[in-house]
Amino acid sequence: MSNESASADHEIRPDDDTVHSMWDNSLEPVRTVEPGDIVQFTCRDSTDGQLGPGSTVADLADLDVSRVHALTGPVAVEGAQPGDVLEVELLDLEHEGWGHSLILPGEAELGLLSDEFPEPSLHVWDLEDGVAQFVDGIEVPLDPFPGVVGVAPEEAGSHETFPPRSVGGNMDIKQLTAGSTVYLPVAVDDALFSIGDCHAAQGDGEVCGTGIEAPMTVTCRFDLRSDLSIEQPQFETTGPFTPTGRDERMYGTTGIGDDLMEASRAAVRSMIDHLQEERGLDRNEAYILCSAAVDLKINEAVNAPNWVVSAYLPQSIFPEE
Amino acid sequence: MSNESASADHEIRPDDDTVHSMWDNSLEPVRTVEPGDIVQFTCRDSTDGQLGPGSTVADLADLDVSRVHALTGPVAVEGAQPGDVLEVELLDLEHEGWGHSLILPGEAELGLLSDEFPEPSLHVWDLEDGVAQFVDGIEVPLDPFPGVVGVAPEEAGSHETFPPRSVGGNMDIKQLTAGSTVYLPVAVDDALFSIGDCHAAQGDGEVCGTGIEAPMTVTCRFDLRSDLSIEQPQFETTGPFTPTGRDERMYGTTGIGDDLMEASRAAVRSMIDHLQEERGLDRNEAYILCSAAVDLKINEAVNAPNWVVSAYLPQSIFPEE
Repeated sequence: MSNESASADHEIRPDDDTVHSMWDNSLEPVRTVEPGDIVQFTCRDSTDGQLGPGSTVADLADLDVSRVHALTGPVAVEGAQPGDVLEVELLDLEHEGWGHSLILPGEAELGLLSDEFPEPSLHVWDLEDGVAQFVDGIEVPLDPFPGVVGVAPEEAGSHETFPPRSVGGNMDIKQLTAGSTVYLPVAVDDALFSIGDCHAAQGDGEVCGTGIEAPMTVTCRFDLRSDLSIEQPQFETTGPFTPTGRDERMYGTTGIGDDLMEASRAAVRSMIDHLQEERGLDRNEAYILCSAAVDLKINEAVNAPNWVVSAYLPQSIFPEE
Repeated sequence: MSNESASADHEIRPDDDTVHSMWDNSLEPVRTVEPGDIVQFTCRDSTDGQLGPGSTVADLADLDVSRVHALTGPVAVEGAQPGDVLEVELLDLEHEGWGHSLILPGEAELGLLSDEFPEPSLHVWDLEDGVAQFVDGIEVPLDPFPGVVGVAPEEAGSHETFPPRSVGGNMDIKQLTAGSTVYLPVAVDDALFSIGDCHAAQGDGEVCGTGIEAPMTVTCRFDLRSDLSIEQPQFETTGPFTPTGRDERMYGTTGIGDDLMEASRAAVRSMIDHLQEERGLDRNEAYILCSAAVDLKINEAVNAPNWVVSAYLPQSIFPEE
């Protein structure tokens, strides 16, 4: 347990009353906190504990997707009003030694290339040694962050947690690591903040639809900023911008075309080909590795009618030859 | 002059015969080189020398956009055949001490927010001190690269250089700095390689439509790779992934919505607001600074129906307060 978590003003553990899988501004807050309070949230993995370190691909057949994402909360922040900005300082994230990534075809249609990956796949990652162990000696550095961080939407009723919204939610911004601060536009009284879907690592784009999904304990400090006015979330971060935190060797593939989504798909498809041909991975392994460790960048979105999206594969994740 | 350029096998200077502004596979090669040769290209700025260090915004009224981009080439690479891959190792880039960025409204409709920026604008950057000088003491680190690097398209006729294509061209991949290698799919006999549109720095996205446009001398080594098969360009690079080459503090704005282009626009619009409100820049200055130093990343493109694009502003470019 870290110093930050030891000094938390509130600790919220996951149980039937504190875990929810839909956004709904009529949910009863599980705790009321004051601006300045430090709150420690323990979060189940995104599947709500349906998968564990011993799971196999056969377990995916029974997965109840309606329990994704198992968020911890909501907490009421005293005094928060619509138009305010909720400042959330991410102080500490502690994983539990394992995580999983999955390819989930079928109704979920999860992933950038869902139409090209008809077979389910699961990789359970061992995180115990401070890196995420993949196949063939490949090691992905850990950069834990919450995939979902948000406040309740203004609209009444029950809203799926899959799409992010202007109030945040499933943004999957991999740079929201410990030390980062996220600013969320408050839409309802008391803000009603929830968090979860923690990832031990992820590539920009989260292309197969999952990062390294991991149960985690997240410690945050809340504040209210009535001096700010924002329409969508903003944040401060020190990265990671590369797995090692410094400029390093990357292999890049491009997608060039008149639609950014199709360009993204082309770049990822070429990267999967590269991982198969040059690194000997099978196609599902390559797709999962892209989702965990390959970053998508928009190189240009101004040279009409064709845009460029590139995918960046860090070479440091491979064992030295 | 660097050691690399001193040892070049060929030097190609810009003149009426060696500069072209359209892709056309019927252009006569200005030189024939062999695989393994080192070639030094001197490139005019993208406007073909219509702007200089003393230019003002008034000069934009007379700008002949048809002369953009002034590329140097084409060179024939002996033995290159359709289906081969041209390997271009970027050895050295030397600027001439100045560059420019511009906002060009009107027919050109250049830029991600062209409909919101009706007034032309020009900033001439002093690069002499090894950084690019902006307003208010803001300094953008230099990371010179060629915005356009490509080979002639298979299709006959004259093709604009603005859109990149599967054979490369105006890709504006800012990580193609010295030490990088780019792989281009050859579409015609002898490849017919051209280069230009050099940028002293640029943000991922090049959102106002220009980087720091600078005349430059680029030294490359060519090779042919018949062992590779690619459909669109690929590359190896060591970045830059941040202006300083290591994880550093960034301010981020998000764009969340069901279209990646609109999400990109929203993220940039919020960053421009941030630069106005927090840094005191005027709107055109903020837009130009975004194009020179702010990076667009796709955070997720899988949480249907809403995607997230974020814009990242390095805090190190501002003078210490």
